[in-house]
Amino acid sequence: MSNFGFSKLRVVNPYEKAFRNAVSAVGATDLLASAEEYESVADAVADCPLVVGTTAVRHRELQHPLRRLELGGRLIRRQMATGPVALLFGSERYGLSKQDLSFCHWLIRIPTREQNISMNLGQAVAVCLYELIRNGRAVVRPEKQELATSGEIERITPLLSDLLSTSSYMLPQREADTEQRIRRMLRRLKLSAQDVEAWLGILRHVQWRLRSGK
Amino acid sequence: MSNFGFSKLRVVNPYEKAFRNAVSAVGATDLLASAEEYESVADAVADCPLVVGTTAVRHRELQHPLRRLELGGRLIRRQMATGPVALLFGSERYGLSKQDLSFCHWLIRIPTREQNISMNLGQAVAVCLYELIRNGRAVVRPEKQELATSGEIERITPLLSDLLSTSSYMLPQREADTEQRIRRMLRRLKLSAQDVEAWLGILRHVQWRLRSGK
Repeated sequence: MSNFGFSKLRVVNPYEKAFRNAVSAVGATDLLASAEEYESVADAVADCPLVVGTTAVRHRELQHPLRRLELGGRLIRRQMATGPVALLFGSERYGLSKQDLSFCHWLIRIPTREQNISMNLGQAVAVCLYELIRNGRAVVRPEKQELATSGEIERITPLLSDLLSTSSYMLPQREADTEQRIRRMLRRLKLSAQDVEAWLGILRHVQWRLRSGK
Repeated sequence: MSNFGFSKLRVVNPYEKAFRNAVSAVGATDLLASAEEYESVADAVADCPLVVGTTAVRHRELQHPLRRLELGGRLIRRQMATGPVALLFGSERYGLSKQDLSFCHWLIRIPTREQNISMNLGQAVAVCLYELIRNGRAVVRPEKQELATSGEIERITPLLSDLLSTSSYMLPQREADTEQRIRRMLRRLKLSAQDVEAWLGILRHVQWRLRSGK
């Protein structure tokens, strides 16, 4: 909840009051301290114009419209713009009772697979809240490094060709062929301008060693 | 992982071998039993054409392109169509080391808020995998009940008007006004055909009681 910016936790008859002492809730101390306890679901959701229940069930005689989280989340977000929405989770073991569900306007389910539909409670909450804050149109963070221009990359070609000649990798009669292959290979690498400099340094150094070493 | 259909868990030097005995992993026994242990990140990701690291960090001197999960997930899904992708998570406490990160092609971050960026490991995994299987175009599950037609709803109007007359809620001289108000109210209720029948039953019953009771 704290990770995704949700601050109002309401608990109905918590089985262990120990939940307030949860030590693993790094950074969420305030949230736990201000959690409100209620004796019934009715009281807990009384001030909410929209109450959405969560369920792993698919085919039981559900009396409610059931929506996949992707769609339900969109509807909840829309409603959140105008007022509070209660997102109701049941106990890890039993989920929400029929009585609990009767306070819900509709239900969402996380699209888990048939073979293992029931989720860990903390993970289910995280997934639902992530869906509420996710932003499919979020600005793409620009790549840290810009791609090298063709001219910058081309500075590598003669140096590498030269090195391959010196090291006898490239046969003199295949020179043109090999150079073209190198040129194409270099362009597939998506080098950044910075990386071009690094490679030039490496190649110059190896070339110097090859020439002076013998 | 099991909830969202991911079956290949690889662990690098697990701190406690106890992870295999995790009791809370309902339905994921097979997954844990078949988890593979490796001695290094290099070995664990050796057969993966794409390795994506996860980080909560935003501004550290990251040497990698960093993408929000919404975008990164899309790129990972695309790659998954052609081959395995490694999604690399660090320890809950320290995250991935610089050494670990050097095996990654790029990084994703879950869009947590600045005030509390670091997530519980299990929740972070659940959120990332959900993003990979979520389907924004998932078919809308049809509402269980179809909305009542205007004609069906209109069957309630005379009955309710009649009841309000009998119970002296509606003054004779305001009859037309009140009836129009009722008609508008009924249409705002988004009644299903089934609910119309239920309400007709209730209203008839109350009317019968009112008339016979006095």
